[in-house]
Amino acid sequence: MPYGKVDELAINTIRTLAVDATFQANSGHPGAPMGMAPVAHVLFNKFMTFNPKNPEWVNRDRFVLSYVLPATFLRVIGMAQREPRVTVGRDGARSLFRGASERGSAYLCEVPKPDSGLFNGHGCMLQYALLHLFGYEISIDDLKNFRQIDSITPGHPESHDTPGIEVTTGPLGQGFANAVGMAIAERHTAAVFNKPGFDLIKNYTYAFFGDGCSMEGIASEAASMAGHLKLGNLIMVYDDNHISIDGDTKCAFTEDVMKRFEAYGWHTQHVENGDSDLESIEAAIAKAREVTDKPSVIKLTTTIGFGSKLQGTGGVHGNPLKEDDMKAVKAKFGFDPEKMFVVPQEVYDMYHKHAAEGAAAEQEWNKLFEKYGEEHKDLQADLKRRLTRDLPEGWVKSLPTYKPSDPAIASRKLSESVLEAIHSVIPELMSGSADLTGSNNTRWKKAVDFQPAEYGIGDYSGRYMRFGVREHAMAAVMNGMCAYGTVIPAGGTFLNFVSYAAGAVRLSSLAHQRVIYVATHDSIGLGEDGATHQPIETLAHFRALPNMMVWRPADGNETSAAYYMALTSKTTPSLLALTRQNLPQLEGSTIEKAIKGGYVALEKEGADVTLVSTGSEVSLCLEAVKTLKDQGLTARVVSLPCVEVFDAQDKEYKLSVIPDGIPTMSVEVMSTLGWEKYSHEQFGLNRFGASGPYKDVYAKFEFTPEGIAKRAKATVDFYKDVKPLRSPLNRAFQQLI
Amino acid sequence: MPYGKVDELAINTIRTLAVDATFQANSGHPGAPMGMAPVAHVLFNKFMTFNPKNPEWVNRDRFVLSYVLPATFLRVIGMAQREPRVTVGRDGARSLFRGASERGSAYLCEVPKPDSGLFNGHGCMLQYALLHLFGYEISIDDLKNFRQIDSITPGHPESHDTPGIEVTTGPLGQGFANAVGMAIAERHTAAVFNKPGFDLIKNYTYAFFGDGCSMEGIASEAASMAGHLKLGNLIMVYDDNHISIDGDTKCAFTEDVMKRFEAYGWHTQHVENGDSDLESIEAAIAKAREVTDKPSVIKLTTTIGFGSKLQGTGGVHGNPLKEDDMKAVKAKFGFDPEKMFVVPQEVYDMYHKHAAEGAAAEQEWNKLFEKYGEEHKDLQADLKRRLTRDLPEGWVKSLPTYKPSDPAIASRKLSESVLEAIHSVIPELMSGSADLTGSNNTRWKKAVDFQPAEYGIGDYSGRYMRFGVREHAMAAVMNGMCAYGTVIPAGGTFLNFVSYAAGAVRLSSLAHQRVIYVATHDSIGLGEDGATHQPIETLAHFRALPNMMVWRPADGNETSAAYYMALTSKTTPSLLALTRQNLPQLEGSTIEKAIKGGYVALEKEGADVTLVSTGSEVSLCLEAVKTLKDQGLTARVVSLPCVEVFDAQDKEYKLSVIPDGIPTMSVEVMSTLGWEKYSHEQFGLNRFGASGPYKDVYAKFEFTPEGIAKRAKATVDFYKDVKPLRSPLNRAFQQLI
Repeated sequence: MPYGKVDELAINTIRTLAVDATFQANSGHPGAPMGMAPVAHVLFNKFMTFNPKNPEWVNRDRFVLSYVLPATFLRVIGMAQREPRVTVGRDGARSLFRGASERGSAYLCEVPKPDSGLFNGHGCMLQYALLHLFGYEISIDDLKNFRQIDSITPGHPESHDTPGIEVTTGPLGQGFANAVGMAIAERHTAAVFNKPGFDLIKNYTYAFFGDGCSMEGIASEAASMAGHLKLGNLIMVYDDNHISIDGDTKCAFTEDVMKRFEAYGWHTQHVENGDSDLESIEAAIAKAREVTDKPSVIKLTTTIGFGSKLQGTGGVHGNPLKEDDMKAVKAKFGFDPEKMFVVPQEVYDMYHKHAAEGAAAEQEWNKLFEKYGEEHKDLQADLKRRLTRDLPEGWVKSLPTYKPSDPAIASRKLSESVLEAIHSVIPELMSGSADLTGSNNTRWKKAVDFQPAEYGIGDYSGRYMRFGVREHAMAAVMNGMCAYGTVIPAGGTFLNFVSYAAGAVRLSSLAHQRVIYVATHDSIGLGEDGATHQPIETLAHFRALPNMMVWRPADGNETSAAYYMALTSKTTPSLLALTRQNLPQLEGSTIEKAIKGGYVALEKEGADVTLVSTGSEVSLCLEAVKTLKDQGLTARVVSLPCVEVFDAQDKEYKLSVIPDGIPTMSVEVMSTLGWEKYSHEQFGLNRFGASGPYKDVYAKFEFTPEGIAKRAKATVDFYKDVKPLRSPLNRAFQQLI
Repeated sequence: MPYGKVDELAINTIRTLAVDATFQANSGHPGAPMGMAPVAHVLFNKFMTFNPKNPEWVNRDRFVLSYVLPATFLRVIGMAQREPRVTVGRDGARSLFRGASERGSAYLCEVPKPDSGLFNGHGCMLQYALLHLFGYEISIDDLKNFRQIDSITPGHPESHDTPGIEVTTGPLGQGFANAVGMAIAERHTAAVFNKPGFDLIKNYTYAFFGDGCSMEGIASEAASMAGHLKLGNLIMVYDDNHISIDGDTKCAFTEDVMKRFEAYGWHTQHVENGDSDLESIEAAIAKAREVTDKPSVIKLTTTIGFGSKLQGTGGVHGNPLKEDDMKAVKAKFGFDPEKMFVVPQEVYDMYHKHAAEGAAAEQEWNKLFEKYGEEHKDLQADLKRRLTRDLPEGWVKSLPTYKPSDPAIASRKLSESVLEAIHSVIPELMSGSADLTGSNNTRWKKAVDFQPAEYGIGDYSGRYMRFGVREHAMAAVMNGMCAYGTVIPAGGTFLNFVSYAAGAVRLSSLAHQRVIYVATHDSIGLGEDGATHQPIETLAHFRALPNMMVWRPADGNETSAAYYMALTSKTTPSLLALTRQNLPQLEGSTIEKAIKGGYVALEKEGADVTLVSTGSEVSLCLEAVKTLKDQGLTARVVSLPCVEVFDAQDKEYKLSVIPDGIPTMSVEVMSTLGWEKYSHEQFGLNRFGASGPYKDVYAKFEFTPEGIAKRAKATVDFYKDVKPLRSPLNRAFQQLI
């Protein structure tokens, strides 16, 4: 079908909505929407299948905006240096989308002057405009409240806030890798559920990215992974405008991007006129869809600032446009320069027609799925259940439990036992490692690798991911896999190298992804590999991250408890810090106690001191109790495998664990930062570790019963005169959460 | 000169030393040394110029081992499952190398069984063996103490511990990027100091890397940067053995690596027989040295486990070799299977001859440098001074100072003023940004970009780095630049995205690199960009990192103080957390006070409460003092811009700042984790932020004078009954440092 006036009108509507929203917000800018509106129009209206009334339909096509908008463009098309204006905000209550979210009351605010430097990622107005036009639950008022507080149109798209937003993006490269993860989950889900006559799962994942993402290592890692995995369902559009925030990309980025993608095994195309050649754009996307054995990238050459007086001068550091220049841009697009947020009815009509086709497609799919249930009852029930994010009934019976008489085992091995025990009852669980499978113990014995079948080493129904030495992409790919909605990903590396993935781990938390980080070799206990591999700051880092459960189990029951919480917390990621060295099974541990995050591992009446500890140091503390007894002191021991879960218990329980009246000392063989919240004194390691056999390293730093006892005694002495001696859990006021 | 018996003998000596050291340690394995010994021999003995008696000679060729050794190989060539043995360690005192290091007393230890999974990066025995053979201060005993506690041969090479080790590596991809940084520093130093007739600086940087590094995003970023910068002085050897820890690289890594490097603009070559074709290896290195306008990579195909019975079967998960198999390997190399740590005299002779040539080259260079001083006195003095790491005398007078009447300015702008003021008096200072120059304010007005001259946008004498959107590589490249010895690098990004660089930031600290992270947009104060860009956990993360100064200045004088400490601390990196929003100049601040890390910003006799705060919240606390006064409460205010520097002050001073007897409340608009160390109560933000104008965001979370006052009052009430009320700085025992 040839493109006509209404297509042009639609494209220009997207552009002017972006112009208006950024103008209204006095923040952000319309660069991406203006440049990428043509391809977005073709993609959404010609190719993508989705139902705006049900943004969660599992077989919808996915779209990810992994984008940066260059400040230079702002300087060209931008609207800086206007006077502050008063904006009346939207007044509140809207239906919550995907879990809890606080949305608020009306407000008056002064809009500050824009910051000419701070303009990356603002391309999300492109997506907000599209979602509105197609009829997602995003109103014109929401667009007017772009980047205002408590709006559903924040400065970067957040998936848990806004219907139709698949993943939380903005930090560069993340969306790119998320898209790879979504394509992986699609291939896997299709391999598991599709049957002859039932192509239930058959969707594409599309993503837009720019030069910023291209430069990020995480995107390189993810692109290499996608090429290896031959993800034919993944189609990306590379906005080749040669502009990054520092100016022309020739300042720092002169590589041949398409050649690099070819090296990764991608199918590449180039559309030379991305500004207006809709036919070529359509042909390129159609071709990309035909290529089933490779991911596709379409390089789209666009003119920066298309439509503005200064179009094509983005490389030059121009002056900001004045308000009247903005109006001229609108006039050029055939819009009334005096009106804002205008959507011609024929644009709504066209897009709503496509949306209705999507709704009809979902209806068809629902019928197919019903019929599928007649022939594949169990599979249908499984997929239905997965989409609720509930686990199968009774799965918990498979969790291993331990008695004190069971042998000492490293918690990474205990983790392996959990995976071995539960993988058959939780079919949505996928595991993997960043090339440390043998060390992370992430693979159950009969696991099949997730691989293209032609390699002969697995197939797409496989549940074991070979992420390669790509920690950052692993984390972001897991976020994308989780966002797809049908799998729970777990991925391993050394705890120290979870830091390589910090950018994506943060987004697991912010975007409420149920992702499990299996972080082994969790301390100086890894021994000979030395200081370069021994975490000191890592647990403090991730404990400071909101909505992240950091578990450091002390034995088998605690390891099972960690998995229990990780798997049943639908909107919270978990990090499991696991030992290389063996740990004894504790006398006082049970899964039931440990899922409270903290509990009394050894109670003693009239104790002089409480030792609170985690992981490998809990059994050391229990040893220290004997040493202290010889010195006439009575100590009780608390195991605190997850402070975040412990924090969520009621106060009475918490005070029974860390009570008033006796001093508390924490023992953990890494940074003490944060332990002051749970203890009066802290024994830790606020320096780097050392290379050597692990028992030598522990002894060097006095993490021995004697070293603990010495400090516990000092603690008892120091607090003798303090009255009242309150538990550190008693606080003057509540924290904002 | 054709290669002969003695070359083969030397290569096999490297191999057997590696076999013996790993055997002795019962940890690590000889894979890299065995596979890469031929190329190492050719490179070190034919091409590299260095003087083992002075490992700090500035014009030496640099070598970086950025390497992984696959566990699979351990399974082939390894020596697992032996009995524990008793090893007597070296007995201590050795001359300290590059600053403080604790080396210890004799010890007895049980060598534990090896961990069959934990075997990456152990290739460093290759480097230790070479350093020993050429006559660096690494003895045979040091080799025997490989991976033992307090040895100078730790599990991964640490530059501050071991003479001849240029950079601390092990975490994958870091060494690769460090090498790029060293090559950058060389090009820059040459451009600044070389004069007609005086090619003072003219060295190569060589690096070995494997598939592990190839997969890491940081190496992709650095490779793209190196290609763009046309670093002809950089020559890398890629060990193409198709093995990674998870087995054959075909599990996860099927891209065309050489094509990718070509896309980056590198010169590529392939040596097909890396095991024994020394002539081809030599020819390839010679060719790479001739290519002056591109970095070079030589793909070297090697046979995994060369020399062992099972050579070439690395892809197969074989059984570990028994001790007698190890002996067979030795016999095959022509060594006595019963003897360990054997070095034939002719090998020492050959290598010492080359070392003597290096020493002679340095002598020649010293003469040239002396002559250089006659014609270029100031430049000679400048280079001499730089190598001491001292700053120019009197530089400190250039630091800006501020009066309370000066206007409110964002600390990122204050940072810019410092750079503007000091760049001309500290010529070794190089600045840059990860594509956020306009936002980070890292560029002084007349800065010249560090670029190849042919682009027409700068030259190698330029001091401004366009790092591109490559945070992780930026940090590791800065580590390499600093390690070169003639520059002090500073690099900018948003504070939130320093997390992308966490792996390399950690190594800045561990390796004692004087690197400055300019981390702007340091809080929810960045406003509209929203939660994806607003740091919450970031300061806690880096405060928990040993040997890192985290500064969060509250005004102009504190910003100058932060730079003073960052520049004068020769072995400690710094992170400067800077605001987007304006900050008033404080009444009580001076550089002298602020360089103590913490000081009383507002003293009040008989105060009811101490408010301790940093950065943008200090002036809010000063406002809150007035609010509290209206409620009948007297508050004093402490500014604590750098807790690490404050920690280093004497106790009396610290207790004068945060005294006994009155409760203290901290105020910082991010995670409270760690603030319990300096305060009884904490007001912070233990949740993600929000998108909106920044004043709205502050108000939403009650970071207002009223919000602070309310909590300060609760704090006063809560601690009324506690006697004695000690300062949180009073502790029962000292932490290990």
